[in-house]
Amino acid sequence: MREYLEKVRKTVPLVHNITNYVTVNDVANVILACGGSPIMSDEAEDVEDITAVCGGLNINIGTLHKTSIEAMFRAGRKANELGHPVLLDPVGAGASALRTSTALGLMRELNLAVIRGNISEIKTLAKGSGTTKGVDADAADAVTEENLDESISFVKSFAKACGSIIAVTGAIDLVTDGSACYVIRNGRPEMGKITGTGCQLSGMMTAYAAANPEHPLEAAAAAVCVMGLAGEIGWSRMQEGDGNATYRNRIIDAVYNMTGEDLEKGAKYEVR
Amino acid sequence: MREYLEKVRKTVPLVHNITNYVTVNDVANVILACGGSPIMSDEAEDVEDITAVCGGLNINIGTLHKTSIEAMFRAGRKANELGHPVLLDPVGAGASALRTSTALGLMRELNLAVIRGNISEIKTLAKGSGTTKGVDADAADAVTEENLDESISFVKSFAKACGSIIAVTGAIDLVTDGSACYVIRNGRPEMGKITGTGCQLSGMMTAYAAANPEHPLEAAAAAVCVMGLAGEIGWSRMQEGDGNATYRNRIIDAVYNMTGEDLEKGAKYEVR
Amino acid sequence: MREYLEKVRKTVPLVHNITNYVTVNDVANVILACGGSPIMSDEAEDVEDITAVCGGLNINIGTLHKTSIEAMFRAGRKANELGHPVLLDPVGAGASALRTSTALGLMRELNLAVIRGNISEIKTLAKGSGTTKGVDADAADAVTEENLDESISFVKSFAKACGSIIAVTGAIDLVTDGSACYVIRNGRPEMGKITGTGCQLSGMMTAYAAANPEHPLEAAAAAVCVMGLAGEIGWSRMQEGDGNATYRNRIIDAVYNMTGEDLEKGAKYEVR
Repeated sequence: MREYLEKVRKTVPLVHNITNYVTVNDVANVILACGGSPIMSDEAEDVEDITAVCGGLNINIGTLHKTSIEAMFRAGRKANELGHPVLLDPVGAGASALRTSTALGLMRELNLAVIRGNISEIKTLAKGSGTTKGVDADAADAVTEENLDESISFVKSFAKACGSIIAVTGAIDLVTDGSACYVIRNGRPEMGKITGTGCQLSGMMTAYAAANPEHPLEAAAAAVCVMGLAGEIGWSRMQEGDGNATYRNRIIDAVYNMTGEDLEKGAKYEVR
Repeated sequence: MREYLEKVRKTVPLVHNITNYVTVNDVANVILACGGSPIMSDEAEDVEDITAVCGGLNINIGTLHKTSIEAMFRAGRKANELGHPVLLDPVGAGASALRTSTALGLMRELNLAVIRGNISEIKTLAKGSGTTKGVDADAADAVTEENLDESISFVKSFAKACGSIIAVTGAIDLVTDGSACYVIRNGRPEMGKITGTGCQLSGMMTAYAAANPEHPLEAAAAAVCVMGLAGEIGWSRMQEGDGNATYRNRIIDAVYNMTGEDLEKGAKYEVR
Repeated sequence: MREYLEKVRKTVPLVHNITNYVTVNDVANVILACGGSPIMSDEAEDVEDITAVCGGLNINIGTLHKTSIEAMFRAGRKANELGHPVLLDPVGAGASALRTSTALGLMRELNLAVIRGNISEIKTLAKGSGTTKGVDADAADAVTEENLDESISFVKSFAKACGSIIAVTGAIDLVTDGSACYVIRNGRPEMGKITGTGCQLSGMMTAYAAANPEHPLEAAAAAVCVMGLAGEIGWSRMQEGDGNATYRNRIIDAVYNMTGEDLEKGAKYEVR
């Protein structure tokens, strides 16, 4: 997977982010850490110009506003027109009508290269409705070793139906284009105690997609491995008394320092 | 106080935050650190759905927008209807007409479980007007050992008048429901050199209120002790060359690692 | 330069920031670190009251919204009326029509004490249009030892033309009022891998301007030296495995701990 990481560092893709104000700073820093360059803009009158100078668009609905929704559609159409990859992170889809309908609307109207979310959000999009409690996946939905076959076949068929790469992240991550499915087992459960590791992954994955247009599936899977491996490396550097705030920094630091060789050695995946 | 801390870790209350974009990331991470789960939403059309899946609502007026004001009222009414505790953090009340009038309007219209602010903000609300300089308390207003009796009687009578728990934080913290008043002496003056320790406390206090509905006063006081004690523990881990950025992380880390026993041993309070 | 640093610590200037939501938390913490006190407000109906209680106004267009643009003009006029220094950070001017026109409009309508940006943004403002790619300077525009004379004469004449102090930051920093030009060689290239070091500098520079009204040029130059020197000190404290997230904290920590004597010893500049 090293070539996808190295391509990002070499080409420094500019990523346009329309994202929530909770985790936006970490998203910017992780995009820089992986070798990309972030720019944020969510004003409808600004987004077409901004997305035009970028290589990819990351749409995250974590703190929707009416005005930013309009910006998402305008930026998305422009990015589609220019052939830039567009990623959707449907944060909280299923937890409110506005989030669900906005995510579904973006899926209908835009050509999405990747949809990345937790399993409850992805199930909501697949069913067209949901009842997620908040921004975390419901435990009952979790992808486990026990339901793995079934989960893979669900994400594959959803990927086929919507024509996007689907990346479901959790204890076990699944990334599929409908044909092959990467099953990834990097990461640490403690990452769930930091706000925004999912948002960070979406930002980084957009950089990977922009830098590797010939290999969208492999690039998305590589980004998932980088984030999970950074979680493992960051955890190994934790000291007595450290907690989630320090862990957040150590993960971004680990992305910053990760080489292609580190990734090659540390990535834990199989293709099914 | 250990039982209130442990109840948060056990029940993982979901907290809806309508808060400022300055300190929102730290608020999310401290809620995770204490054992809760945060969700942010301030779009009027989104907030009723979101607050309905949560256990408590934290309203912070640190960066008001016209649209978020509407969201505060709508979310607050919904939370009241559902019996969820609602906390108000009147950041900068007294520093602008909009902040003062919004805070007073929220007090009039909503049933607030807790109002948490610095002494100048609380005095502004009690008097119905104020002239605070910025977001910090005026030195002349400070609660001190010298004016403690008078300060306690002021917060008790204000708590009675408005029917909310009042939590005033500063060098000495006061938390009262109008009958008993917790006088808390945890914390470090250097916490004032970090943006948002007050906002963090409000988020965490909402998690404590949501998890401990039978003991609102004790839960609010426990949250104040946790934050102050975390400030002390975090400070004890500071190294040569560390400053306010690192201190911020160490405080959240200390909340993350704090056990009921640590709190029991470290909380410094009397009830008056 | 120590007197300008010490004056900030002594007078604790209150700085009103209308800034982007990406780096706002770091801006607040660096203003606290240098000895000032930050307040954020970007609602048009709130900003006049808020700017009136402050000593300086920092306008940063990093994530423009239609509503915040109105707030920038209203706050700027009020600050001008009160004689407070107003700083403009034209983030991304040249990358979109909205950013360019907003920055030019603010220049026309307001009396700006300082304009601080990267060289591509400043060239865009000087020419009245531009084609910057994103929020970083184009490599072709960079100030280098080779084009230094020419660069100095460009910034001097632009400063004269617009009547503001111009601060261009990059590998070599230039700060001029049209007569004298500080050429500053502090800093580290790795600072470009952290989001918002420029935004942080703008916030800190506004605190310096507010605290040193008699010496606007020297105060602006001192702030540039503080930020660059903090970047050097922060870098010297980096350990194996640290990356851009930790570096961000170490820089703010270094600002927090910097004394007038440290600055005097570490500042690397000449006046041309």
